[in-house]
Amino acid sequence: MWRISDPELQRRRRRVLEEASRRGAAAFVAYSPTSIFYLTNFHFIPTERPIALVLEESGRCGLLVPRLEREHAQMAARVDEVRDYPEYPGDVHPMEHLARWLRDRGLARAHLLAEAAGYASAWGYQGPPLAELLPDARITVDTRLIERHRMVKSAEEIALIRESCRWAGRAHRLLQEYAAAGASEVAISHRASHEATMAMLQACGEARPVVPPSAHAGFRGQVGPNSALPHAVTINAVLRPGDVLVTGATAHVGGYCSELERTMFVGEPSPEQARFFRHMVALQEVAFAAIKPGVPCAAVDREVRRYYDEHGLWPYWRHHVGHNIGLLGHEAPFLDVGDETVIEPGMLFTVEPGLYVPGMGGFRHSDTVLVTDQGIEILTDYPRDLESLICG
Amino acid sequence: MWRISDPELQRRRRRVLEEASRRGAAAFVAYSPTSIFYLTNFHFIPTERPIALVLEESGRCGLLVPRLEREHAQMAARVDEVRDYPEYPGDVHPMEHLARWLRDRGLARAHLLAEAAGYASAWGYQGPPLAELLPDARITVDTRLIERHRMVKSAEEIALIRESCRWAGRAHRLLQEYAAAGASEVAISHRASHEATMAMLQACGEARPVVPPSAHAGFRGQVGPNSALPHAVTINAVLRPGDVLVTGATAHVGGYCSELERTMFVGEPSPEQARFFRHMVALQEVAFAAIKPGVPCAAVDREVRRYYDEHGLWPYWRHHVGHNIGLLGHEAPFLDVGDETVIEPGMLFTVEPGLYVPGMGGFRHSDTVLVTDQGIEILTDYPRDLESLICG
Repeated sequence: MWRISDPELQRRRRRVLEEASRRGAAAFVAYSPTSIFYLTNFHFIPTERPIALVLEESGRCGLLVPRLEREHAQMAARVDEVRDYPEYPGDVHPMEHLARWLRDRGLARAHLLAEAAGYASAWGYQGPPLAELLPDARITVDTRLIERHRMVKSAEEIALIRESCRWAGRAHRLLQEYAAAGASEVAISHRASHEATMAMLQACGEARPVVPPSAHAGFRGQVGPNSALPHAVTINAVLRPGDVLVTGATAHVGGYCSELERTMFVGEPSPEQARFFRHMVALQEVAFAAIKPGVPCAAVDREVRRYYDEHGLWPYWRHHVGHNIGLLGHEAPFLDVGDETVIEPGMLFTVEPGLYVPGMGGFRHSDTVLVTDQGIEILTDYPRDLESLICG
Repeated sequence: MWRISDPELQRRRRRVLEEASRRGAAAFVAYSPTSIFYLTNFHFIPTERPIALVLEESGRCGLLVPRLEREHAQMAARVDEVRDYPEYPGDVHPMEHLARWLRDRGLARAHLLAEAAGYASAWGYQGPPLAELLPDARITVDTRLIERHRMVKSAEEIALIRESCRWAGRAHRLLQEYAAAGASEVAISHRASHEATMAMLQACGEARPVVPPSAHAGFRGQVGPNSALPHAVTINAVLRPGDVLVTGATAHVGGYCSELERTMFVGEPSPEQARFFRHMVALQEVAFAAIKPGVPCAAVDREVRRYYDEHGLWPYWRHHVGHNIGLLGHEAPFLDVGDETVIEPGMLFTVEPGLYVPGMGGFRHSDTVLVTDQGIEILTDYPRDLESLICG
């Protein structure tokens, strides 16, 4: 339940190997938690201790992990071999353990395709690039290989993201139910997130998804005038009559997430608030209509910018239309004038053009949409109209 | 309340500039959220949109942010200037905006000390190194400069971490109170974390700390036999009589955190469980006694390893003794045989040697300790003895 199947993991690896083979490489080396999860279903806590994946042209897939992850990796990672090293920094550096393993596998003089020069972590890690330890190997670094493979989602991925949208909606309905003048943003968010998460866990029964299921809904400080900051952080605001609220909800399903955001009001909005709300909804409609296969991402942002032009809304513009989403909260490509990636069926986007009015608040909905053969399907299932978004 | 003072931010910047000056550099450039927070108190949501700090030899400190963070940075960042660029990827790449700004500041041909070659993010970011855009500048990359400056904590930092220990203790007491046979690990954790966080917010009153206060306590899947995995992930276990539990608690105070972990039992432990518990406590005592100024970190791990030798405990060893802690959950240096950093007063360490018995469970306490002139002060205030750690 809520996991990518083994055949799909195999398809992903074959695709990586096909690309490696086209580029003349005998193996692929990955270090990032996202890439390792994408290829093995192994969900772990990333730390300063390197974890590396080696995918050989034979299809053999191995993981190098610190000793403390051995049993966990053996249980959870869909790989052919788990190797371990004692500790970081340790007597022998983990990258040297990786080099030794590659030598043992006959890859000391091979052409290796790698997603980075070496391991990286902000948690006090330091270490040499692999090339320094394997001077006879030829190492090609391509930091975006797996990211490119992740851009168009498979049927299994879309199913998990649909499920994420469903639970995000549930968390958000609770959030809206509990949002009332006098309540604390943190308390409302904790309650809604807790109840939605427990409902997800109940739905799982005895099944144990590869990633712990959780749902979250909250305001992140976007309450009243503070919602004019698109990336506000929690200020423990107390909701007051007349406040504009900008919400956010997501749910983690098998490692995948989605994005649902709504502009809500505590009580009836003022005419000015209602006017900005209507413009914001119209901006989203422009984007929905513009997203289709064959169109560059940039064209969608340009269409939406035209609406800002035509209605004199540039003082309230703060950011582009949206981003791809999947394993990470933001993924390439971006619905941005600078991104010429051509939209394809199976891509997912958040659609979230916003208006931010200093002193009054922010106006942003975000819907997660799937690109279909003709246009889009909105996966987010939540009302977008003003009347449905007034809280007690 | 719960923020580093402006004079301390100034001292930190002067120290960076002294090092830059010694190395002949005219400015320092930083990209990581941690370094930027350390030098400006600006807490923000890191994304694919670059944020960069430029600290000039005059002491002038500026931030380059995306448009959507302009007002937030102007309000929250203790800097002399906030510059912004429209968006990522945008018509003009944000790194080009950074290069233009440096040119405007007369730094196009300067020697720059930088903490990375360029911005980095897993969220779909790609971009050139700064050196490519400023070909006449000399750029020295030192990824560990701020990390070195963060190793020994100041009085203000220690005060925040003491406060973190206090709230982590509170969250943990609630966790222990609610831990009972038949209860779900997730439900217990949500309840304890919620109540402790609300208490922190109440203590803040109208004050708005630079980082939203929060406390968290939980089990992270370390329940019963699954606690034999040092880095288990939540499995939504239901507690059962006879389970060993390994907990974890922390609290975020002004950007700083601490670590409190305890081995607990649901009901009376078996004689075997009690035996491993006593060994674990003894291992921690060995480490406490070994940590003193002037001693290399490696020596502490070696002392503790001697205990594993003497008592035949190697089958249950999984990791080293501990790590520094502060702005990040793990920081260098490490109490590890491979880390020869000399321990100094003002360093903080988690002390958490563990024993992991397949089929039975894990045994690990983690206490946050401060290195003093003579030895250590244990900042964690929570019982360590078996009798105090039996739950209902």
